[in-house]
Amino acid sequence: MTTVPGTTPYPWPWHGRFDPVRLALLAVACPHPADRGQVVDPGHPVEVLAGQVRGAGGLIISVRVRPPGWPPAPPAEAPPRRPDQVVHAAGWDGFHGSDLDSVLRAAGRDLLLLAGCCLELGVHSTMRAANDRGYECLLVEDACGSAAPDLRQGALSTIEMSGGIFGAVGSRSAVATLMERS
Amino acid sequence: MTTVPGTTPYPWPWHGRFDPVRLALLAVACPHPADRGQVVDPGHPVEVLAGQVRGAGGLIISVRVRPPGWPPAPPAEAPPRRPDQVVHAAGWDGFHGSDLDSVLRAAGRDLLLLAGCCLELGVHSTMRAANDRGYECLLVEDACGSAAPDLRQGALSTIEMSGGIFGAVGSRSAVATLMERS
Amino acid sequence: MTTVPGTTPYPWPWHGRFDPVRLALLAVACPHPADRGQVVDPGHPVEVLAGQVRGAGGLIISVRVRPPGWPPAPPAEAPPRRPDQVVHAAGWDGFHGSDLDSVLRAAGRDLLLLAGCCLELGVHSTMRAANDRGYECLLVEDACGSAAPDLRQGALSTIEMSGGIFGAVGSRSAVATLMERS
Amino acid sequence: MTTVPGTTPYPWPWHGRFDPVRLALLAVACPHPADRGQVVDPGHPVEVLAGQVRGAGGLIISVRVRPPGWPPAPPAEAPPRRPDQVVHAAGWDGFHGSDLDSVLRAAGRDLLLLAGCCLELGVHSTMRAANDRGYECLLVEDACGSAAPDLRQGALSTIEMSGGIFGAVGSRSAVATLMERS
Repeated sequence: MTTVPGTTPYPWPWHGRFDPVRLALLAVACPHPADRGQVVDPGHPVEVLAGQVRGAGGLIISVRVRPPGWPPAPPAEAPPRRPDQVVHAAGWDGFHGSDLDSVLRAAGRDLLLLAGCCLELGVHSTMRAANDRGYECLLVEDACGSAAPDLRQGALSTIEMSGGIFGAVGSRSAVATLMERS
Repeated sequence: MTTVPGTTPYPWPWHGRFDPVRLALLAVACPHPADRGQVVDPGHPVEVLAGQVRGAGGLIISVRVRPPGWPPAPPAEAPPRRPDQVVHAAGWDGFHGSDLDSVLRAAGRDLLLLAGCCLELGVHSTMRAANDRGYECLLVEDACGSAAPDLRQGALSTIEMSGGIFGAVGSRSAVATLMERS
Repeated sequence: MTTVPGTTPYPWPWHGRFDPVRLALLAVACPHPADRGQVVDPGHPVEVLAGQVRGAGGLIISVRVRPPGWPPAPPAEAPPRRPDQVVHAAGWDGFHGSDLDSVLRAAGRDLLLLAGCCLELGVHSTMRAANDRGYECLLVEDACGSAAPDLRQGALSTIEMSGGIFGAVGSRSAVATLMERS
Repeated sequence: MTTVPGTTPYPWPWHGRFDPVRLALLAVACPHPADRGQVVDPGHPVEVLAGQVRGAGGLIISVRVRPPGWPPAPPAEAPPRRPDQVVHAAGWDGFHGSDLDSVLRAAGRDLLLLAGCCLELGVHSTMRAANDRGYECLLVEDACGSAAPDLRQGALSTIEMSGGIFGAVGSRSAVATLMERS
């Protein structure tokens, strides 16, 4: 059994079979909906996380989401700077109108870390969709930015309902510990 | 302009072109995730709402969602009792692994009312997915049940972010007023 | 290496790792488009094939397809008689508007046998879609019925283009040999 | 009633309500599967068709398809040279893993002309998928290239089965006549 220590509400992944060759980081980036499309930047934490994940053999995917109907022009500056792959979605859900599912399947990655921005919008929609498709998901809480800080805790608690209904929640240091071990 | 009075954060629908022949009620039903699959029943309010919508010419669709991996066996007793159509999804999102999009398109329905249970789970996932697909959505707040009442307000506020990022929120009486007028 | 002898244009599966726990038979059934919905019945061959596949540990899925816009009312009498699972699609492609992908993933089945009716319509659309999703497919030629016999050979040759562009083609006896060996 | 004269097996579109603001040309382009990815170029005819369609108010979409598992690197030189939009798919079907459906919906285009290459592969898969989604399709025969000329007639006849099971087939001159009239 290899799991992340300290994740809630269960030690991630639930099946205890962590393996970095099955791991992908989804770094979600969205234009700020109320601010002319400027990227909401969660900043340094995503770069740090990407470095840890890449070092252990995980795949780094930049997932560019957007409000429905917005043009696909992507935020050039969205972290992390050098993803292995860039995926463009046609809505807040990174799987909608994109090849994200194809990319993950072809690469054999079914353990997903979620980070980026915005926690309540694109990250949440993408995590819900990933969970529906059978992916085992961990949201890395301190690598996510919020568009509405007062809704942040509710968004996290919703993931943790009923023993982890959409997956688990953890921190960068928890992930780092797991990466070092594996 | 025909819109629902009193919906937040904007008068629904945003384009002001309400027409009951374009309207569908998605009555979401899910098994209780922690309770052996028993249906979480929002009870009477969904029946009342369905009666109002049907009277005005709207289509009533029972959307049966479920935790990923659960068998499709549907809750027989999910309200409303006599939907025009029953759709079975393969996850919390009513569009995932179902013909919901096909049914709505074939029937020419792009104005959606969302109700049922659970607000934070299947109703939210289905509303997010509908919004990504370009449907104009109104969540009927007092026709939705909650699995976690303390997360209810956050779920509603998330919909209302940035001027209604996933649609609008209203009440059964607001809908009733609109139905009578049209 | 375990492959089916005599399949064209390559020994199936291409990776040589046949394993019945990864196998599913998709038995496609469609209403006859020109004949009031009566099922086009490929008859006995599908039952024979299903028996062989089940005996080896394969999963039997009845895939009910239909012309776009037709109601989902399924042909009750479509063979095989006792599938492990029934899937209803919203078009000629068995993956469209259905939970077929979810069912296969949850069951860990990525080696697919295709049979049923009609070869040029639902079987072909479903095989093309399965191939796009990364499934390794074998069409069992003498377990498929045709709506237009003069188009049958072209449909088979299209699968075999460029070294097997949509998969491979084989016979029931080839499959039987493989089942006995494994 | 406005329809294209001389299309088979029925005057397109079937409902007789042609309107260029509802029209889009899907110009499919694929790498040659057996030839290191070089684009199969149907050449001049696609440019001519695109000019006619654009002149009448139709939308020009370049649909880049590819064999499953191939990287998304698109053929830069695929005609037409200046599409209004470029869509990248994750398989032979232009709708699979792409935002094609979102683009068409957002633009209100439900009448589709199909052209490009290869008729038996990407064009056919995309037309089948479009038909399943309720789009009304016309394949422009003399603007399509073939990877296997001996399979070309069968591919066309399959579309025309049972009164036009996947849509209709016409020529550039038939389309030109319709464009001039409207």
